[in-house]
Amino acid sequence: MRILVINPNTTTAMTDQIVAAACRVAAPDVEVVGTTVEMGPAAIESYIDESFAAVEVVRAIACEPRFDGYVIACTNDPGLYAARELVSAPVVGIGEASLLQATLLAPTFAVLTTLARAEQQVWQQLRAYGLAQRCVWVGATGVGVLETASSEASVADAMVTAGRIAVEQHHAEAIALGCAGMADVVRALRDALDVPVIDGVGAAVSLVDGLVRCSHRTSKVRTFAPPVEVHYRGVPRPFGGDDER
Amino acid sequence: MRILVINPNTTTAMTDQIVAAACRVAAPDVEVVGTTVEMGPAAIESYIDESFAAVEVVRAIACEPRFDGYVIACTNDPGLYAARELVSAPVVGIGEASLLQATLLAPTFAVLTTLARAEQQVWQQLRAYGLAQRCVWVGATGVGVLETASSEASVADAMVTAGRIAVEQHHAEAIALGCAGMADVVRALRDALDVPVIDGVGAAVSLVDGLVRCSHRTSKVRTFAPPVEVHYRGVPRPFGGDDER
Amino acid sequence: MRILVINPNTTTAMTDQIVAAACRVAAPDVEVVGTTVEMGPAAIESYIDESFAAVEVVRAIACEPRFDGYVIACTNDPGLYAARELVSAPVVGIGEASLLQATLLAPTFAVLTTLARAEQQVWQQLRAYGLAQRCVWVGATGVGVLETASSEASVADAMVTAGRIAVEQHHAEAIALGCAGMADVVRALRDALDVPVIDGVGAAVSLVDGLVRCSHRTSKVRTFAPPVEVHYRGVPRPFGGDDER
Amino acid sequence: MRILVINPNTTTAMTDQIVAAACRVAAPDVEVVGTTVEMGPAAIESYIDESFAAVEVVRAIACEPRFDGYVIACTNDPGLYAARELVSAPVVGIGEASLLQATLLAPTFAVLTTLARAEQQVWQQLRAYGLAQRCVWVGATGVGVLETASSEASVADAMVTAGRIAVEQHHAEAIALGCAGMADVVRALRDALDVPVIDGVGAAVSLVDGLVRCSHRTSKVRTFAPPVEVHYRGVPRPFGGDDER
Amino acid sequence: MRILVINPNTTTAMTDQIVAAACRVAAPDVEVVGTTVEMGPAAIESYIDESFAAVEVVRAIACEPRFDGYVIACTNDPGLYAARELVSAPVVGIGEASLLQATLLAPTFAVLTTLARAEQQVWQQLRAYGLAQRCVWVGATGVGVLETASSEASVADAMVTAGRIAVEQHHAEAIALGCAGMADVVRALRDALDVPVIDGVGAAVSLVDGLVRCSHRTSKVRTFAPPVEVHYRGVPRPFGGDDER
Amino acid sequence: MRILVINPNTTTAMTDQIVAAACRVAAPDVEVVGTTVEMGPAAIESYIDESFAAVEVVRAIACEPRFDGYVIACTNDPGLYAARELVSAPVVGIGEASLLQATLLAPTFAVLTTLARAEQQVWQQLRAYGLAQRCVWVGATGVGVLETASSEASVADAMVTAGRIAVEQHHAEAIALGCAGMADVVRALRDALDVPVIDGVGAAVSLVDGLVRCSHRTSKVRTFAPPVEVHYRGVPRPFGGDDER
Repeated sequence: MRILVINPNTTTAMTDQIVAAACRVAAPDVEVVGTTVEMGPAAIESYIDESFAAVEVVRAIACEPRFDGYVIACTNDPGLYAARELVSAPVVGIGEASLLQATLLAPTFAVLTTLARAEQQVWQQLRAYGLAQRCVWVGATGVGVLETASSEASVADAMVTAGRIAVEQHHAEAIALGCAGMADVVRALRDALDVPVIDGVGAAVSLVDGLVRCSHRTSKVRTFAPPVEVHYRGVPRPFGGDDER
Repeated sequence: MRILVINPNTTTAMTDQIVAAACRVAAPDVEVVGTTVEMGPAAIESYIDESFAAVEVVRAIACEPRFDGYVIACTNDPGLYAARELVSAPVVGIGEASLLQATLLAPTFAVLTTLARAEQQVWQQLRAYGLAQRCVWVGATGVGVLETASSEASVADAMVTAGRIAVEQHHAEAIALGCAGMADVVRALRDALDVPVIDGVGAAVSLVDGLVRCSHRTSKVRTFAPPVEVHYRGVPRPFGGDDER
Repeated sequence: MRILVINPNTTTAMTDQIVAAACRVAAPDVEVVGTTVEMGPAAIESYIDESFAAVEVVRAIACEPRFDGYVIACTNDPGLYAARELVSAPVVGIGEASLLQATLLAPTFAVLTTLARAEQQVWQQLRAYGLAQRCVWVGATGVGVLETASSEASVADAMVTAGRIAVEQHHAEAIALGCAGMADVVRALRDALDVPVIDGVGAAVSLVDGLVRCSHRTSKVRTFAPPVEVHYRGVPRPFGGDDER
Repeated sequence: MRILVINPNTTTAMTDQIVAAACRVAAPDVEVVGTTVEMGPAAIESYIDESFAAVEVVRAIACEPRFDGYVIACTNDPGLYAARELVSAPVVGIGEASLLQATLLAPTFAVLTTLARAEQQVWQQLRAYGLAQRCVWVGATGVGVLETASSEASVADAMVTAGRIAVEQHHAEAIALGCAGMADVVRALRDALDVPVIDGVGAAVSLVDGLVRCSHRTSKVRTFAPPVEVHYRGVPRPFGGDDER
Repeated sequence: MRILVINPNTTTAMTDQIVAAACRVAAPDVEVVGTTVEMGPAAIESYIDESFAAVEVVRAIACEPRFDGYVIACTNDPGLYAARELVSAPVVGIGEASLLQATLLAPTFAVLTTLARAEQQVWQQLRAYGLAQRCVWVGATGVGVLETASSEASVADAMVTAGRIAVEQHHAEAIALGCAGMADVVRALRDALDVPVIDGVGAAVSLVDGLVRCSHRTSKVRTFAPPVEVHYRGVPRPFGGDDER
Repeated sequence: MRILVINPNTTTAMTDQIVAAACRVAAPDVEVVGTTVEMGPAAIESYIDESFAAVEVVRAIACEPRFDGYVIACTNDPGLYAARELVSAPVVGIGEASLLQATLLAPTFAVLTTLARAEQQVWQQLRAYGLAQRCVWVGATGVGVLETASSEASVADAMVTAGRIAVEQHHAEAIALGCAGMADVVRALRDALDVPVIDGVGAAVSLVDGLVRCSHRTSKVRTFAPPVEVHYRGVPRPFGGDDER
């Protein structure tokens, strides 16, 4: 089985981290391939950044339509529904993945995110996926995406501090990590908090793996049917000769 | 007061229709200016189309940052949150606008959309805005965006047929129109169904007008704060010298 | 366009304030007319007060059935649904209006109310209108309606204090004001808190204005259909020769 | 124990029916006293009617403040929250009562109401009380309140027809009756449908009975605290020398 | 009328307390009979304990199928739905009963439970019954079931402390007691907090009483229909000759 | 990795089917071991059956506490929370598993269940897990558990008929199978309906597999903490020397 893990930002060092996290949990017969989008923001901190990234995720998948499954490795899940239109192979975002795994390990969870501006974006996801009732807190560390991914000790400290608030004040029984760059602090958080700590990259890889082993393909009957042909002005149509559609 | 109405698809004939609909409801001291995005799909039928349109909406507003208010004239509200980050002036999408006006006219409403693939997209909006409990039906006419905007008699027929299902079978007490190209059939629907029929373009223009008269600006404290500076690779940063941020 | 703004309490000084707030946001072609109910409580602090006020709102509209639109200027929206039965012209309550405008300016908001006893009444409205998920806090200043309307400095202080709790502790990104008498402190709150502060009177006037410009009338097919004729004992029937019904 | 059952409409024949229904289920040590409001509509079919009735319910209880418990015998529960402010003794509306009993007998229920205009009013109650998820259908018989109370065979027929739709098409497992005048058809419905059929009058009497036996009084700490003193213009203050407040 | 009150744990001293609490609120024509399950945990603190208790509740009712109504006297409501399948007479759990009574006395309530591990179990019940929106807090005293039932002064102190947090910090306007062993501290809590304090045993007895007086029987059309016959290996089938099914 | 798949009913032929379904999707390095509970119902059709099965699931896991993960192979998820208390290794029920996988493949799904009596049980699960908003229909085939597992052609016909209703009338875009015995008709349903068809056994095995590869263990801080020691009368305590607790 071959899974393509797409980093929706243009920071290749972060792609390396993400692929490493993916490989750590992949089954022996799974080949993980990482890719970085070609254009756009170096980190996704705003809705504007996310808008640009979503288009690049679509382009990245359109260039590589033959994988068995796809992971979108940004917790905002940029381009997720568009990707499901584009290919039939399963596509999972790390945002939804971390939330789903959390529901299997604890009755309640908290989500740790980067900047305060992202907190409501997480709540929007929680409502869209129907999981808001399980989440007791969304808290920001105040540390931006790239700094979070830098794996400095101060980042782990900030996350442990936020994690303690989640567990002690809000009674969260698990922690979902709200950034692809947080995988390296999983161990520090688990040691400090003694609750499950869920990295979205690992969660998404394992969910895609499961969907593929169960021979599942994205539903194509209505919402995620192949797009109707529409003329694109000034840019190539993002979809074309894929004979699956 | 000057309001910029952005058509997120590249079909200029549709921009003309949208501007005409906007002008019909504008107060005498309001200047409506229409604009069409430069690149992207001629119609927004899929999530892929919407992804591309969202970026172009951001670009269109970044080029015209001095208006008193903005309307995004596609019922999917592409780029709405990104636009709220970009400028302080109020931004309203015609999707949310038609739903909000409907709640003031009737206890329940239905949304008429174009293709069946769009129905769940509408439900996602309804849940995101918190208005799902007021909506009794989302129904597709099976007519695509551009054909809907063509104003042929057959389109009105299809919409009246769907509207009758909404009112008679689902007991909708108002109809929200789920496409910017539907403004021209408002009269036919009202005559046939005898319930309020809400065109999103008119709704959005009047909501922005009201926000401006009340001196409101988009909240900038957390979620819609000006984006943090992030390097963009391969494309210009979509935000720059706007001294409001 | 002529809009009737009804003060549901019998304090005429408050009517003057309300009309002034309405006029500040009215478009140049809009005539705002204020009226005070003839009987009932001087302020609406309890459900009992609200019950009496609702009847008087119905009577006030029944006496003036020819306006283009109506605003019920008490945040409890007393008599709102009854008023929608009575006339076809749009009727908007300042409670619902402030909440709807808030949703267009921020992802979350708080409502500031007067006495602690009113907090659950606000939550009941939020659930009825479907907007509870957007509200992060309802907080009382502990200052009653008439004192709030007195515009003393101490009132502004109490409201700024409550507003700070909303923004700093509950992360509200906008403030909806939960009393018609709060319009005069909008500026003080905006200056202190740097978030949108929404006065319901202005919000309702602009929403009615928009509905009228869009040629909308309240739906009359089921819930708000003209009442069936019922004998009234001891009091005149509140509806009669209105040829619209 | 003495329970006052208030008919909020002015039709005394209906009061007799209601008291009879109440007496059928009262425990041997319970005295049921019926009363009819003095003024207002002969039947409550609209929100306007309900507004007038709510005030009269408050007046009726203010005149009789010494009962052990109160039942408001109209399914709209007019004046319920106001009544809870007025007295400390428990007050139960027949609308809420029928819904609560239904939840104890079946996982799902339907509500049968009178005219189509009342259906959304029932849904508003269901949402306010938090029980909407348990209700699978609200259906109108098309028969008005007074005709329903007339106990003609045609009324039972209409209700059995609606009940069959509830059970067979919507899979309701119990039926809550949405009008005080429906008590006399309970037997016919039970025989025809073989599901629990819940009359609100009986339900409310038994709920009040239980609250009194458990020595419960309405909470007075915040929302239902005795009203603050407010000047009433043109009408007597509805509350005065009750030393409980 | 004869009501069987089942203590799902094996501590007979607690059965005595429960029966005493039931008798205090029973109407004069009601005979309360208490019974203790034969096997299983001495207290129900965990889901494991609850699983064992549920089976024993079914067995206890199968042995005594001729009562007019049944109360399951553990706040987890173990075996409630199974019991409704088994007999036609009404069955009420003290968990659901305390919540329902609370909704009639106050707009919001808190639930006091025993150990922290039980808090999410209460939230699961609140969501299942549809009453989560009415509950502002679930708080544990940290005192286990048997110690709670011991009626020592320290227990009352712990409960008053938790009750104060509920009322003062979370603005609960009523307190539902989340353990059958808490009945003896009702008076102390009411005196200290001045809000309604609802003991589930009393609530359940009065609700069953009301259902019986209204001649209600559990719905048998679908969900709670008598079980289809299934072979049981190693244990006797828990249902057999009850001619009601 | 070793996963124990527990059949909560006593029909060993069904265990064989379940293990076969599990093995079809297991990764090469996963050993699936099946087990059948020792006592209780041959099929789980009622809440009574489920109560007995839950206890046996606890016993089965208590006897085999050293597996890396556990699957409870009945769609009711009997004993799921109890099992999470008992061991630290991940435990997944096939009911929750099929729903979670469905959310990754389509925006809406339907659940096909066996007898009509089970429909509300499924809705209860959907609400408990927070996924009710994604489910458009729960429909029964009218075929009991053991007959469903018999793999006769008539079963496939009944399921295809129900599946067509789900897709064509309710617009479900995926089908979750609501019985462990339905795995053998997956292919027939996929061929007939052209939407994803999700068997819970495969889903649960792949979810447990993913949790184990990500090194996750059930949260033990509050809700699923090891049970406090309670005396069990007449039966052995279901938990004892497991040194993990």
